[in-house]
Amino acid sequence: MAEQKTLADLTAMVDGTLEGDPTVIVCGVNDLSNAEQGEISFLANIKQAETLQQTKASAVVAPIKCPSFDIPMIRVRDPYLAFAIIHNFFLADSFKAKGIHKSAVVGDDCHISEEVTIGANAVIGDRVAIGCEVTIGPGVVIEDDVTIGNSTCLHANVTIAKECRIGNKVIIHSGTVVGSDGYGFATDQKGKHIKRPQVGIVQIDDDVEIGANCAIDRATFGKTWIKQGTKIDNLVQVAHNVEVGQGSLLVAQVGISGSTVLGNGVVVGGQSGVAGHIKIGDRAMVAGMSGVHNNVDPGTVVAGIPAFPHRKWLRACAVIPKLPEIAKEVRALMKKVNENE
Amino acid sequence: MAEQKTLADLTAMVDGTLEGDPTVIVCGVNDLSNAEQGEISFLANIKQAETLQQTKASAVVAPIKCPSFDIPMIRVRDPYLAFAIIHNFFLADSFKAKGIHKSAVVGDDCHISEEVTIGANAVIGDRVAIGCEVTIGPGVVIEDDVTIGNSTCLHANVTIAKECRIGNKVIIHSGTVVGSDGYGFATDQKGKHIKRPQVGIVQIDDDVEIGANCAIDRATFGKTWIKQGTKIDNLVQVAHNVEVGQGSLLVAQVGISGSTVLGNGVVVGGQSGVAGHIKIGDRAMVAGMSGVHNNVDPGTVVAGIPAFPHRKWLRACAVIPKLPEIAKEVRALMKKVNENE
Amino acid sequence: MAEQKTLADLTAMVDGTLEGDPTVIVCGVNDLSNAEQGEISFLANIKQAETLQQTKASAVVAPIKCPSFDIPMIRVRDPYLAFAIIHNFFLADSFKAKGIHKSAVVGDDCHISEEVTIGANAVIGDRVAIGCEVTIGPGVVIEDDVTIGNSTCLHANVTIAKECRIGNKVIIHSGTVVGSDGYGFATDQKGKHIKRPQVGIVQIDDDVEIGANCAIDRATFGKTWIKQGTKIDNLVQVAHNVEVGQGSLLVAQVGISGSTVLGNGVVVGGQSGVAGHIKIGDRAMVAGMSGVHNNVDPGTVVAGIPAFPHRKWLRACAVIPKLPEIAKEVRALMKKVNENE
Repeated sequence: MAEQKTLADLTAMVDGTLEGDPTVIVCGVNDLSNAEQGEISFLANIKQAETLQQTKASAVVAPIKCPSFDIPMIRVRDPYLAFAIIHNFFLADSFKAKGIHKSAVVGDDCHISEEVTIGANAVIGDRVAIGCEVTIGPGVVIEDDVTIGNSTCLHANVTIAKECRIGNKVIIHSGTVVGSDGYGFATDQKGKHIKRPQVGIVQIDDDVEIGANCAIDRATFGKTWIKQGTKIDNLVQVAHNVEVGQGSLLVAQVGISGSTVLGNGVVVGGQSGVAGHIKIGDRAMVAGMSGVHNNVDPGTVVAGIPAFPHRKWLRACAVIPKLPEIAKEVRALMKKVNENE
Repeated sequence: MAEQKTLADLTAMVDGTLEGDPTVIVCGVNDLSNAEQGEISFLANIKQAETLQQTKASAVVAPIKCPSFDIPMIRVRDPYLAFAIIHNFFLADSFKAKGIHKSAVVGDDCHISEEVTIGANAVIGDRVAIGCEVTIGPGVVIEDDVTIGNSTCLHANVTIAKECRIGNKVIIHSGTVVGSDGYGFATDQKGKHIKRPQVGIVQIDDDVEIGANCAIDRATFGKTWIKQGTKIDNLVQVAHNVEVGQGSLLVAQVGISGSTVLGNGVVVGGQSGVAGHIKIGDRAMVAGMSGVHNNVDPGTVVAGIPAFPHRKWLRACAVIPKLPEIAKEVRALMKKVNENE
Repeated sequence: MAEQKTLADLTAMVDGTLEGDPTVIVCGVNDLSNAEQGEISFLANIKQAETLQQTKASAVVAPIKCPSFDIPMIRVRDPYLAFAIIHNFFLADSFKAKGIHKSAVVGDDCHISEEVTIGANAVIGDRVAIGCEVTIGPGVVIEDDVTIGNSTCLHANVTIAKECRIGNKVIIHSGTVVGSDGYGFATDQKGKHIKRPQVGIVQIDDDVEIGANCAIDRATFGKTWIKQGTKIDNLVQVAHNVEVGQGSLLVAQVGISGSTVLGNGVVVGGQSGVAGHIKIGDRAMVAGMSGVHNNVDPGTVVAGIPAFPHRKWLRACAVIPKLPEIAKEVRALMKKVNENE
């Protein structure tokens, strides 16, 4: 909090080019409209460069081609990224372990680092392993035989069901459930749905972040697997035996059906659904509110319900409002052509 | 509960016209099929007036033009509204403070009114302010530096993250998370997603109601803001820095993307999605299951994915099932016209 | 766990035909790729019969017409169903009551069987009735006047609001809220939304399973009703006064609007929405991501937004990507035909 840096230091931190006094002191970050003196801000888009005239910020991170204003400027290729790096630097705080709150309930045979903060009324089952610098929020429930790596944070009221494995530097937001039963039933001849036991686990790898009130189901057998660096937004559903590759993004309210495999760097837009037992290739993108029924090739972009290539979809969408008119024209043409015969 | 009113009183309460004995005593409300003697019920639609012949209710709130039946009738312009007013009157109960349950955990330096009910195993952080006549359900977690106004009710297992501000007469249903981190990342050249710290808050104004298992993200900077009298249904996602105006309605499973601004009196139908950084004008309506990518003018109604004017959408939808036939006709026309050349 | 069966026993259990040594001992189940010696696995699809050459399983449940391999085989008409039956047999475990955890809070005048397991920090209100062999997970909140039948399991952090009735052998996964207020408001002439009190209940019948982070709203009057044997996936919204018949399936992220009635054996695909006040007939199916605005006849299959018969929808979807081309052709035809006149 009391961290201070000169503009020269910050410029070096983000590999930028400084325009202005390198000895200016910065002690915090903010957006352009809220920034006060002593804070650094950022401009993502040159088109909004005019707003630099009003800001009270002491300096700004800006695109390389940004015109100059009467404010010190760190020019970088990606101001959004550079600003995130600077912001994280100012927030970086050495972890302060507060220990296990006296109202928390901890089971038998656990291996819990001394360097943890476990909140009030948290409940931890038997044989749970928790690494160092871990924060467990109030009301969190961790069932038996779960393992949690180092520097992970589970926010208030998260539930981790039995045997699931959470890696290092994972963040899980409030209300999210990891390891609920997959939705698997076999239906007998009378229409009765027999529950298929769900005896697999969920494995969440390092650097994954999962939003609030998500549901990540355990596998029927084996594991549901969220790989390193993937970021999941709020209210997302990940079904049993799904694999999500590294560095993928699942935006809010997405649903991924059972046994589907997403590659690395995949982006699924908000409220989209992906059918079960298919593959989405590396770096493929699914536009928001789309429904994917078939495999998607690496690097391609799809949209629509059911989904097809995004460019074709954009063109098709442009026609849809005109359909009544087109239908009318076709009727008129039919009539004319038939009359001419 | 033991409240009693004459039909004369109730008629005055809703500014209606009474047909029948003004001295009849009413002591409760119910729907037509479940009502018992002594209860008042309501008829929303004249088409169902026949059902008045079977009800055991002692009186009914009905539309002005409803035919007469052998039951006392309070005629009003909006029976639905009048009945809600009467129902609320009968339920109105003076708040009974039960205090702080002995299993609840309360942090340091809090300002909590004596007139509160705080449920079992609730967890309240440091420096939290809670007004009078507030109900905090069991298992609720309120993090540090939160403020909560008067007469607000947080149902069981709600989470309010640090620093958020909840107004007066707010109702938040179970499982909802207010103040989870916004979904913001800057991606470096290697495809690694760097978390953008989310240091803003959520502000919920007076008379807002939020359903169960919603997620309202905190702002990156500044605030995510739900304004007075807005009502949000279950499982709704509100992203960082969104503003929702006064008296708006977000139906179940809606998602509003980051930095979008909704005006006053906006209605967003169930499961619809609204893209980020756009504006939805006052009293605009978005039909259910629509995807809004662009600004929507005040007072207009849109539908579809992507959304366009609702009337055009209705006509376009009527054509879609006929597309295979139209395509066939166009092929036939092409053939004929080409043959004729 | 230490349960053992011969192949002869298992074959009889599922009414199959054994090919191989009936004395082989099986002590567990697994999928083909993870199975070890001593475990039985299953093959759902003859097309993947080749995979039987690699498995280490000691036996396999397979379709009647599956070619023979060097592995004992129980042939059945529905391997998926037979395997579920065998798997449930191996998991079946006599209920071990652990009693009420000392950190749980139980209200007054409750009737709780001695044969229960109530987890740490669970909160149970006044006048709650809980049957035998019931498991209540940690952090669960059960409000006043709730009744829960026998052999039911509420996973961690579930909330059951006041007066709701949960049957026998019900499973509810973590984070789900049963009995939140329905979304009902009457809007006055100034645009203010007056809350309609929601004084009904939710009734969940026997053998129902509900996934994680769902919201099942209480009725305005009367009850919201989920009937016997229905299975609901994660993040599903069921509004006030909805009735879901017996043995229906609601896949993840589905939303059912108020007062709608679903028959028996209805299937609603993932992320679909059903409008309010309509009827979906017995054994009707709604494809995923569809929006149903009108009644659906028993036994029919619908798709699309708004939904229409699934077969027509499939054909219409095939045309949509070609719309730009068709529009172009129609323009060309118009031009030609007009020129010819």
